Formats: sequence, C-alpha cells, structure tokens
Amino acid sequence: MKIKQIVLASRPHGLPTSQNFRFEEKEQKKIGEGEVLLKSWFISVDPYMRGRMNDVKSYAASFKVDEPIAGGVVAKVIESGSKSFNEGDTVFGMLPWATYCIEKAENLRKIDTKSVPPGYYLGILGMPGLTGYFGMMDIGKPKTGESVVVSGAAGAVGIVAGQIAKIQGAYVVGIAGSDDKCKLLKEQFGFDEAVNYKTSKTMKQEIASVCPKGVDVYYDNVGGEISDAVISNLNFHARVVLCGQISQYNNTEVQMGPRILPRLLTRSIMVKGFIVRDYSERFEEGFAHLTGWVKEGTIKYTQTIIHGFDKLPGTFLGLFSGKNHGKMMVEAE
Amino acid sequence: MKIKQIVLASRPHGLPTSQNFRFEEKEQKKIGEGEVLLKSWFISVDPYMRGRMNDVKSYAASFKVDEPIAGGVVAKVIESGSKSFNEGDTVFGMLPWATYCIEKAENLRKIDTKSVPPGYYLGILGMPGLTGYFGMMDIGKPKTGESVVVSGAAGAVGIVAGQIAKIQGAYVVGIAGSDDKCKLLKEQFGFDEAVNYKTSKTMKQEIASVCPKGVDVYYDNVGGEISDAVISNLNFHARVVLCGQISQYNNTEVQMGPRILPRLLTRSIMVKGFIVRDYSERFEEGFAHLTGWVKEGTIKYTQTIIHGFDKLPGTFLGLFSGKNHGKMMVEAE
Repeated sequence: MKIKQIVLASRPHGLPTSQNFRFEEKEQKKIGEGEVLLKSWFISVDPYMRGRMNDVKSYAASFKVDEPIAGGVVAKVIESGSKSFNEGDTVFGMLPWATYCIEKAENLRKIDTKSVPPGYYLGILGMPGLTGYFGMMDIGKPKTGESVVVSGAAGAVGIVAGQIAKIQGAYVVGIAGSDDKCKLLKEQFGFDEAVNYKTSKTMKQEIASVCPKGVDVYYDNVGGEISDAVISNLNFHARVVLCGQISQYNNTEVQMGPRILPRLLTRSIMVKGFIVRDYSERFEEGFAHLTGWVKEGTIKYTQTIIHGFDKLPGTFLGLFSGKNHGKMMVEAE
Repeated sequence: MKIKQIVLASRPHGLPTSQNFRFEEKEQKKIGEGEVLLKSWFISVDPYMRGRMNDVKSYAASFKVDEPIAGGVVAKVIESGSKSFNEGDTVFGMLPWATYCIEKAENLRKIDTKSVPPGYYLGILGMPGLTGYFGMMDIGKPKTGESVVVSGAAGAVGIVAGQIAKIQGAYVVGIAGSDDKCKLLKEQFGFDEAVNYKTSKTMKQEIASVCPKGVDVYYDNVGGEISDAVISNLNFHARVVLCGQISQYNNTEVQMGPRILPRLLTRSIMVKGFIVRDYSERFEEGFAHLTGWVKEGTIKYTQTIIHGFDKLPGTFLGLFSGKNHGKMMVEAE
C-alpha cells in the first residue's frame, strides 16, 4: 500500500513557506507484534510546531530535515497487532503527517467520539485545552472580580483560558485580530469585552479603557507590542501567564522592545513561562475538569477544519496570519 | 533647640543632583504624651529611595516637595514621653533626614547594640537583609549544586542574597563594578566566582564561562544590559528574583532592550518582582534566621559609613556610581 507523507524539506529562515515542506510517497510496511496500522483522520496544526522547525534547543525536540513533520493526530485503527486496540477504534497519538502510519500500541490512547466531536481531542480535550487549564488555574489564579486579559483569545488555547477565567468569577477581556473574532468572543464565548488589535491605534489606552481597574492576570499567547500594551496596565501583584509568543516565532533575531523588568519590580508582578508538559502528572485532573465543563456546556468550543491532507502545509502557515477561529486542523479524508 | 533637616527641594529629572535637596533649620517642638525625642545616629541611604523622589505610583509613597526625605534611621532616645522607652535607649524607625526628631513611640523598635554594630539594623538585620532573605528563600529557592548569579552582589542586599544561596549549597557567582569588590566577594564573603562588569567586554560569554551548566537562579539588583547577559544564560525552570533595577532608576523614559518573553517562555522560566513588605507577616522568621547566622558567623557583612549629617545627599548620590561596599549609611555625629 502506498502512503503519502510530508517531510521537513528545509529549515525556514523567518516566516516558513510551502518550500519548507515536501510531499513523499512510500510503501507502507507490515505491522509487527504490538503495533497498529492507523489511517489519519484529523491532523493538528499548532503554533509551537514552528519552534520545532528550528535547529535550536527549546522545550520540544527539533524536527529533522527529510523526516516527517509530526504532531497531534486523531486516527482510525485499520489493523491491530495489539490486544489493546481493535479495528475501527479511534485513537489519539503524536504521529507523523502521513495518510497512514504504523505506531506502537503503547503510544496511543483510545478516545470516545460518541459524546464529543473527534477533533476536540486536538483542542479543548487535548494539549490546547490542558494548556489553557493549567496556565489559568495554576499560574493566573484569577479571583472573583479580578480583571483578566487574554491575547490570541480566539485561538485554540485563548478560548479555553478566557472561559476558565469566567468560571472563576473574573471580568475577562479578549484580544483578537478581527471584528468577527471579537464578536464571537463576546456573543458565543461569554467574554465581557474584546479588543481588535488590528484596528486599534492605541492599544495601551484601549486596554486601560476596557480595564478601568487595571489588569490582574494577563494570559499571553502572542507577545510583542500587544504584550507591551497589556504589561503597561498591570496591577500590583499581577500574574502573567506566558503561554505563547506567536508574534515572535518567525523573527530571525531577538526583537527589541521596551524593558519590562522595572515595571515587574515596582508592582511585585510575576511572569511565568510554562509548557503543558510541566503539568504531566496532573493531566488526569485537567482532563476530568475540561470534559465535565464541555459535556455540561459550561465551556463552548469552536474549530476550523480544513479538508484534504494536501492542505496541511498551507493550513499550518495560516496560523501565523490568524486564519483560524479556535482550534485549527486538517481532516485527512 | 535648633535642628537641621534635609527636604526634597525639587523632583529630579534623570540622575538626582545636590540641587534636589535643601538643608533647613527649625525649632524643635516639645514632645507630647506617647512621643519620644530622638537624636539621629545612623541614617540609611537606599537605592529604592530614588523612586520615592518621583511623583509616580510605585511600591513606596512619593516624598513631597519641601518636606523631609525619610528612611531607615538608628537613633538615640534623648527624652521619652512613653513608658516603652527610656533615655539612652537605641531605637530603629522610619524617620526624617534630621539631626533630631520627635516620633510616636508605637512607630519605634528598641534594638540591641551590644552584640551587633548598630548600623546592622539598617543592613543585614534590617530591610536589605530581609530583602535578601525572602527573595532568595521564597522566590529563588536554590537547590544544592544549582548555579546562582547575583547582580549588584557587593551591595547591601546582594552580599546577603549570595551568602544565603551558599548556605543552601548552591554555586554562587557575583557581579560587581570593580576588581576590589570582586576580590571582596570571593575572599571575604565566600562567593565561588565574581565578574567585574565594568571591565568585561562580553558579559554574556563571561557568564557562560563561569556558569558552564547555565544559570538556575538570578537574583537581580541592577537590570539593563547586565540582566540581558544573565537572562541569555538561564536554564529550564530558572527563577529570576527581581529585587532592584538600579541601572534604570534614573532613566527619564522606558529604555529599549532585547525582548525577554520568548526566552522565558521556551525555558519555563519564572520572573517575580517583589518588595520586602510583601513578606511583612514573616519578618520574625527572617529576622531570627539572619540574627542567628550573623551571631554564629555564617554570614559576614560589611558597611560603608560616611561621617557627618551634611554628607547625606552626596552619600545617597554615591549609590548610583557604586561608591559603597555593602550597606552604605551616614553617621550623623
């Protein structure tokens, strides 16, 4: 059987292009003992994968040139050499960008797709959801009545982080890149206010006007000038949840910006970078809370599904121009 | 009785000068019920006082123009209208820069000057010592074998912070502004290494070479380019204790520097600004530990004492050119 896969053709310098990816065809091998043959169903694209395209030490291992890109995938079991899985099961795993693949059973997790859409395991019930949960609950810790600002608020993580802050009784403002997204945040996801950073000329003043009592928690997915504006509005004892810096991922040099340490000092502010893996021992707790909130309707979620395996590189690139509402993924078909 | 006092003549723009201070003479009033007449003995000068000269919201209230500068003072009781104090007692209080003053007894603390020098209550057994203690113990939390870097290491706080890290079993590097200070740090205060930032041309590489395993805790008193160099060497899960930013206090505008959030993110680093008052409920604990360490000789301390009340403004200004070894103060005489 022939399969299609996508490998890293070359490392990007700055913004990646389709030239950094290459489609390949190869003959699929037979499964061995304890292995499972999988057909990819939903394939995740995530901003953190940009870092893995570089050859530098970061929190996730680098992709290798001429080897497949890999990430979160929801797949169907086609053939099983393991007692743990049967043909027809739906599983989640960290898998290559390929139409089919073989994986050891121990690296797969069976998922229930009857009560929630399968793509949710790449979003609200997967890495982005857990990231929103632990960042907000363990670092942000918003109290009733506090003001919380979320950047990248209409993204896979931001939507969850903001709604969790609402559950904690906070006043929540989202920052997003279009009027459509801002409308969605307020009307569908219960944010109190939303700011379109692309049409705002004075972000610092705009944040001040929607947060008249200052900002107590800043959940940051983007960095850069948006973060400068929010940091200028932080209150005494504020917490900055450093979750993503998508505005900086494609820079080839460290950007300059206003020094923030003096403000962090004079206001006793904490900034904490994290990656969801830091909380791996508590995944069960997070997963249980998120599943409960989704099933009872307390947290709403949205996903942008692009159809066709061949669209994967373009869909990934779309993350950096904000093409997604909520979690973005490709349905392989 | 005539007394001399020093008032804020005008708010500095940038680096303060002697023009921002004015000496005044006034007639001392009589003490009332519950009040104490004090003669200033040792008067503290501290970097944080620069912030109080501005008219902006910070962690300490602003000084008022035409009113006395105030800070930590060790004083002798000359006359007492309170049962809590007797003539001849030595006390500590937050008092005006004045040769004599009257203060309510409830704002004063009697101190023991038999077993430790009186100036220690402005340093190791006062605000700077507690700042070093809580910053290092509660935020830095160095573990045995970890690498700790302290900037402003030969200052009133840095000397304590570094020695506390040594007590915790860490490898400790100090950054200071002269070869003399570096020698002192290694020979007298037990630092493992010391770097003179004034003669180093490539601080980032120099930090990398004295901390070959990277930096786990950075206790920052200075900010600016020194901090850029250390932050570039921080390890995964490093902690930055944000205690001071003396290099930035005299800036009239926010300085630009390399953006640090991306590095904090990808290495799961925490930065926490604090002020010693955040720990006021635990002062007894800190004071008890520091007193024990000083009395048993585990922590050594040094002070720079300038003689003469009239030298106060110049001594304060000297902090910004690094004129002090350890805690700097004026003996009023």
